[in-house]
Amino acid sequence: MNRPWEALLTAVQGLPGVGPKMAERIALHLLRHRDAAKALGEALQQALDRLTRCDRCGDLVEAEEVSPAGCPSCRAGNQDGSLLCVVEEIGDRRALARSRAFGGRYHVLGGALSALDGIGPGDLKIDALLKRVGEDGVKEVILATNPTAEGETTASYLADLLKTRGLSVTRLAYGLPAGSVIQYADEYTLARALEGRRPVD
Amino acid sequence: MNRPWEALLTAVQGLPGVGPKMAERIALHLLRHRDAAKALGEALQQALDRLTRCDRCGDLVEAEEVSPAGCPSCRAGNQDGSLLCVVEEIGDRRALARSRAFGGRYHVLGGALSALDGIGPGDLKIDALLKRVGEDGVKEVILATNPTAEGETTASYLADLLKTRGLSVTRLAYGLPAGSVIQYADEYTLARALEGRRPVD
Repeated sequence: MNRPWEALLTAVQGLPGVGPKMAERIALHLLRHRDAAKALGEALQQALDRLTRCDRCGDLVEAEEVSPAGCPSCRAGNQDGSLLCVVEEIGDRRALARSRAFGGRYHVLGGALSALDGIGPGDLKIDALLKRVGEDGVKEVILATNPTAEGETTASYLADLLKTRGLSVTRLAYGLPAGSVIQYADEYTLARALEGRRPVD
Repeated sequence: MNRPWEALLTAVQGLPGVGPKMAERIALHLLRHRDAAKALGEALQQALDRLTRCDRCGDLVEAEEVSPAGCPSCRAGNQDGSLLCVVEEIGDRRALARSRAFGGRYHVLGGALSALDGIGPGDLKIDALLKRVGEDGVKEVILATNPTAEGETTASYLADLLKTRGLSVTRLAYGLPAGSVIQYADEYTLARALEGRRPVD
């Protein structure tokens, strides 16, 4: 079998969630649609060249927009500076922003603590977070890490660090997702929904 | 939100089988693993630059290996030239080759007839197939298109064309996949398995 094809298959198969069959489908698609393939190659190169993590808030931003004072979203004056929402990744930040339920600022950790994947506190933007809450007039930190083992570990690690600084530390509510059916909810979700029940007003 | 990130997301989301969430996961993976991203970009460029369809057999091959007489797999002397296996795509050819149950040659159509996707006979390597069976001393053509509506249509279209040329035309057997459980097989597969039952020897 020819080498460029094998190399393309190998590279595509290395992407998360892509198995051998899907890799073949994607590789064929790219070879059949040269425009799409070129667009992907260029977008990838542009992203590699131009995107960087903001040293201050951890967000993924265009390098040219970052100044010593941070990136545009760090500096945005129209956001409530007393509220800081800590998320694992840029995608979480995007999802929360789409909900339009939060008017404060974000801090992107760049992942979660994971003994399995060898990700320790030094691999995440935790120092930058501590520096930021010290400087910014932040009063409440919302720990919006994922409700997974890694996310929980990260949240409790951060909660310990932040509480000693006299900050109010909160966590997103657990419960039934909107539009879900109780019958099919897992036990863990139901237990948390019962635990977190609230008076009806 | 920044443009290079959006452009990368859009390009990744254009890949088959990749939805918005998976696109975000892939894009983040690429930005976190710059080596993997560069390898993908290079493999893609190499594949676009170096791979071509063989005019004769339709296989996806390195351009430099193609001569007017075809590509290496067309010309391979150790294969049974009287048997020609017609497949839709290079992936099918690879899967059949892995089974080691076929010693003849392959012809890759480059797709299947589909009214829905606007793919007609002129879009597939059918002229090349007819030319090839006329020249090559082919005696039997195995139509190994997929057991889908498109694959069936393509097979019956080709069968009509090939039978008028006095060739023996066969189709892959339908039936239960190896290792499957009758209880969970779909009705169509079971009906075909009954229809195609064979004496036990």
